[in-house]
Amino acid sequence: MKKVKGFLFSGVHAGLKRKRKDVGLIYSLSEASSFAVFTKNKFKGAHIPVSKEHLKSGTSRAIIVNSANANTLNGEKGIKDAMRMTEITAKLLKLNKEDVLVASTGVIGVPLPMKKIEKGIKLAVSSLTKNGTSDFEEAIMTTDKVKKEASTYFRYKGNEIRILGMAKGSGMIEPNMATMLAFIVTDARIELDVLRRMLKFCVNRTFNRISVDGCMSTNDSVFIMANGRSGSPRIDRGKSFYMFRDALLEICKDLSFQIVKDGEGATKVIRIIVKNAESESFGKDVARRVANSNLVKTAIYGEDPNFGRIIAAIGTLSDKVREDIDVSVGEVIIIKNGRVVEFDRKRAKEKLKKDTVEIIIDLKDGNKEVEFLTSDLTEEYVVINSRYTT
Amino acid sequence: MKKVKGFLFSGVHAGLKRKRKDVGLIYSLSEASSFAVFTKNKFKGAHIPVSKEHLKSGTSRAIIVNSANANTLNGEKGIKDAMRMTEITAKLLKLNKEDVLVASTGVIGVPLPMKKIEKGIKLAVSSLTKNGTSDFEEAIMTTDKVKKEASTYFRYKGNEIRILGMAKGSGMIEPNMATMLAFIVTDARIELDVLRRMLKFCVNRTFNRISVDGCMSTNDSVFIMANGRSGSPRIDRGKSFYMFRDALLEICKDLSFQIVKDGEGATKVIRIIVKNAESESFGKDVARRVANSNLVKTAIYGEDPNFGRIIAAIGTLSDKVREDIDVSVGEVIIIKNGRVVEFDRKRAKEKLKKDTVEIIIDLKDGNKEVEFLTSDLTEEYVVINSRYTT
Repeated sequence: MKKVKGFLFSGVHAGLKRKRKDVGLIYSLSEASSFAVFTKNKFKGAHIPVSKEHLKSGTSRAIIVNSANANTLNGEKGIKDAMRMTEITAKLLKLNKEDVLVASTGVIGVPLPMKKIEKGIKLAVSSLTKNGTSDFEEAIMTTDKVKKEASTYFRYKGNEIRILGMAKGSGMIEPNMATMLAFIVTDARIELDVLRRMLKFCVNRTFNRISVDGCMSTNDSVFIMANGRSGSPRIDRGKSFYMFRDALLEICKDLSFQIVKDGEGATKVIRIIVKNAESESFGKDVARRVANSNLVKTAIYGEDPNFGRIIAAIGTLSDKVREDIDVSVGEVIIIKNGRVVEFDRKRAKEKLKKDTVEIIIDLKDGNKEVEFLTSDLTEEYVVINSRYTT
Repeated sequence: MKKVKGFLFSGVHAGLKRKRKDVGLIYSLSEASSFAVFTKNKFKGAHIPVSKEHLKSGTSRAIIVNSANANTLNGEKGIKDAMRMTEITAKLLKLNKEDVLVASTGVIGVPLPMKKIEKGIKLAVSSLTKNGTSDFEEAIMTTDKVKKEASTYFRYKGNEIRILGMAKGSGMIEPNMATMLAFIVTDARIELDVLRRMLKFCVNRTFNRISVDGCMSTNDSVFIMANGRSGSPRIDRGKSFYMFRDALLEICKDLSFQIVKDGEGATKVIRIIVKNAESESFGKDVARRVANSNLVKTAIYGEDPNFGRIIAAIGTLSDKVREDIDVSVGEVIIIKNGRVVEFDRKRAKEKLKKDTVEIIIDLKDGNKEVEFLTSDLTEEYVVINSRYTT
């Protein structure tokens, strides 16, 4: 698709990783309405308080990111280093440091190698280009196997408005949020409070409904920048609001799916659909229990129709679940009225062989529906995570 | 040690498993005060309502158990089959069916093969012997690699009181409870209400503080039978209460450790000690988060000093944790005042190489201490659980 107007990108190798790119930069040619949502973990990466501070004005011009080191649990030094990253970037781009946001991802509890970072930022600034998205996506990867990008556009009063999202995330994926970073840029013209409402809405329905390992990260962040360069009128609270929100939701959904698909060691995406919940929040609780059950995840990896494990996971929410629930895999009904029924094992097996396995849970207790994504649990997950720092 | 007086045991092969024993029986020569605690999962094994009903009198004479099939999610037929197990056993032992308790463990959602079970019960009744404990322990195993037994005794007013515990459990291990079954028999003379209080106290501090995979089972049960045959006076609420409770606690602790040690695929036991918690229940919450973090479990399996993962897990309880907590592994302090410190990596590595790895978390927020056991997460866990039914 055509480029989002007025944004440049780069990704360079600064030596934090052995070979791959590890410092990335996004730069807007003009002031952009900016907002971000961050992890709810008590122990937050140092980039979070610094970015929060710089987001107070509601606008920004650039985001500097490094991978391979999360800059988390590094105390005062961590904060100073994150701040320094914005200062170096600002100086080179002739901005105020408050115009620069920052993000880090990688190992926790190791100080940032600031010399390498500084070298990396210089290189990143001098490499900025319209076509730098792929380099940027590589630069933010940790255990990711593939780059993650999603884009869309819509026409509004004669102009095309474009949205591009780039993300990383593979492990420590769990709502609120995960070691995932997402960066969304758009050339829409849009007020901060509208942007904020839309991002929260979309994140809650996408990035907050995925899990790889049930482990909440210290660094997760979703950033959005809107620089208004499309030339179209301002997005307001009328029809354009919903046009933009739908487009943003599509981007967030797409990136969320990509993150789970590239989940550490994953061979399958598991799509859990909870139907007829009494509330969205309870539907999400049910979905999460299933999504984070190692027994469900291993059974699906093994394409093993051991579906009692699904209901065992749901049953841990004992007080609030009806006994007569239904569970099906694809269209194959496995559990009817809380009881395993005779089902066509061959057809069930076929459903399990797919890249995306659908588990549908009918709680029969209301009319809310919730979708949640997770990956299967494989030997490779264990291999990746038992050897990550050493 | 010497036998617990007045109990006979057996374990036989009825064909539910391919080769190993799969039906076990405990029989008391006289009426025994009996009590049990069961899983809090909404979807309970059919043995649970039946045993609960038969426990209403407060006494029992026998417990019949099968492995390889959990008799869970089988609807009315499941209940009928569990009841039938008590009837067959009662008839052969010339008891009322209310005198017989029942337990099942294994795959969920498959009807019990009642012909095999019936044959097994007959064989089990005819094989009862004082020395049948080892056979019984084999008969209750599923993915367990080793049998689990613990015994102790104490002297009370000139008589020896003996306690014997036998357990199974390897996966779906998580408080409240797990696919674990434990059977404790004693020749103490003891009132039902005293027995009930003691068992609850001990289970809460032991079996409810272990986790292998964070998956709550549908079948967990801990049974205790006290037949009074030691000849010693009744255990009352005085000094003898504490003597018995300490002995029972020792048995439960020992079996809990054995269950975690034999956790599916486990190579290490992880002992999590939370110090200075504001309450026991919050200390337990913290310990559980760490115990159920796949990232912590894989790091310890890999003997990888990636300790930030511990604090990331604790941080998910964001509202209630202080920022300046300390974490050490063995005596090696890793995190001081919420910040990773320079630590002796060689010494930390040595601590990680042990069979039991100790993680000590100081919350600095009160004076309660909680201990919690879990196992590491290995490729073998995935292999076992991706191929369990097929």
